[in-house]
Amino acid sequence: MASEQNTEQQPFSWPVRIYYEDTDAGGVVYHSNYLKFFERARTEMLRSCGINQNTLLEDNVAFVVRHMDIDFIRGARLDDELTVQTTISQLGRATIIFCQELVNSDNTVLCRASVKVGCVNLTVMRPISIPQHIKAEILRDR
Amino acid sequence: MASEQNTEQQPFSWPVRIYYEDTDAGGVVYHSNYLKFFERARTEMLRSCGINQNTLLEDNVAFVVRHMDIDFIRGARLDDELTVQTTISQLGRATIIFCQELVNSDNTVLCRASVKVGCVNLTVMRPISIPQHIKAEILRDR
Amino acid sequence: MASEQNTEQQPFSWPVRIYYEDTDAGGVVYHSNYLKFFERARTEMLRSCGINQNTLLEDNVAFVVRHMDIDFIRGARLDDELTVQTTISQLGRATIIFCQELVNSDNTVLCRASVKVGCVNLTVMRPISIPQHIKAEILRDR
Amino acid sequence: MASEQNTEQQPFSWPVRIYYEDTDAGGVVYHSNYLKFFERARTEMLRSCGINQNTLLEDNVAFVVRHMDIDFIRGARLDDELTVQTTISQLGRATIIFCQELVNSDNTVLCRASVKVGCVNLTVMRPISIPQHIKAEILRDR
Repeated sequence: MASEQNTEQQPFSWPVRIYYEDTDAGGVVYHSNYLKFFERARTEMLRSCGINQNTLLEDNVAFVVRHMDIDFIRGARLDDELTVQTTISQLGRATIIFCQELVNSDNTVLCRASVKVGCVNLTVMRPISIPQHIKAEILRDR
Repeated sequence: MASEQNTEQQPFSWPVRIYYEDTDAGGVVYHSNYLKFFERARTEMLRSCGINQNTLLEDNVAFVVRHMDIDFIRGARLDDELTVQTTISQLGRATIIFCQELVNSDNTVLCRASVKVGCVNLTVMRPISIPQHIKAEILRDR
Repeated sequence: MASEQNTEQQPFSWPVRIYYEDTDAGGVVYHSNYLKFFERARTEMLRSCGINQNTLLEDNVAFVVRHMDIDFIRGARLDDELTVQTTISQLGRATIIFCQELVNSDNTVLCRASVKVGCVNLTVMRPISIPQHIKAEILRDR
Repeated sequence: MASEQNTEQQPFSWPVRIYYEDTDAGGVVYHSNYLKFFERARTEMLRSCGINQNTLLEDNVAFVVRHMDIDFIRGARLDDELTVQTTISQLGRATIIFCQELVNSDNTVLCRASVKVGCVNLTVMRPISIPQHIKAEILRDR
């Protein structure tokens, strides 16, 4: 099955508040923590489609990040109230590509990432096709 | 079997360097990160006794922290070269109590903790007795 | 000024969702991450009293954790929806003691902590009295 | 000034040990933590050139990550002993591009990243040229 493109979908929005735990001595968010915010948003987007990662995990299935391309544009600060905007740019046989942006209330983009995740069987640590019911749930929601 | 006390043992020393990842916007180490330094030191102390946590994990056994009492005395800063000093203050049937101090090169204590860990079967998440060979390895090294 | 006790206050509730970032290879939340959940809840409790830590930080003032006594009772798992319940058990001249519990939907306590925080001038890293307007805001809300 | 290329330099090696703090419930290292390993290695590479980030920070100067392109090839596991290999692929007026690989003892690459960092004045959060003495120290070591 060919990958599917959809540029018309509404982005999925998920709020992020910045706490001390996220910042570093430079006074802004430590760079690797943006990846956590993006992962929370992908998790919640999947949950909104009825996909529960804990249920997958009990079957030894997980989505793992294969590739990320990230622009760190502007540092977020303590107490900032931000939003992660997430869209799916490609849904393939075994991988999903997400486009994600962390924006502030002015819609200024602080961080932007393209994230390729793959479906994996954790027992043997091998890539597997995305289960059909998961693809169906993602497609129904777009 | 009664718990065993030993106040004469030499502390086990493990170096810690402070990186940006450890600090927060207050300019010092974020408080929960001291717990990571202590855990690294306990891991290395056990490793020095020939106890490999990954091997335990493959048998679904892990040491989990049950209780901590921590004094955060003085904030560590970026680039600081510190040392964790660890002793075992009590070795019980199912638990170990570690005394740990994070000190700088002047031997000033920055953080001090008493840490009680218990042995757990991860499959059923139940406490179990510490395996005899592990107790033997710890006792031999004291 | 004597410390003030108030046992009748309603706990402040703050929700926590468990993500992959919070867990470890044992399948449950890594112990130091509970401290982050507690800190988020203290921050939100103060925010609900009108106290913004970023504003304090701009004046080089911060609340820092001085002492914690923590019981790790039961491991939280991926996707768990939990609540931190926070009360102030003591409001002193320069310190606040918080009592915090992380509970699940059955009101089972997974983790419990007593947390003493002190007010600090970050420029000189010295303890200072809690500013009067902050004490007033905390007391008004109890 | 044109950027400078040097493909003959020896990579700078920095060891990484995997602890519980680094892993997640999937049994492997949580993806954002690889960025911490890479940052430790860049810090140590700069330190080996005589560049101390804490000294820079006291002058309100920091290197911040602008862009990363990362391949997560194979998950690292608890207790793994790994090495980060770092080279500088480009030294520009205001930016440095690092090539970094996390390898195991078989020299298998687990994670690979291209990391662009920029020099920033933290007071005004503006890009600045890399101080000349820092460029000189980096070039001398290649």
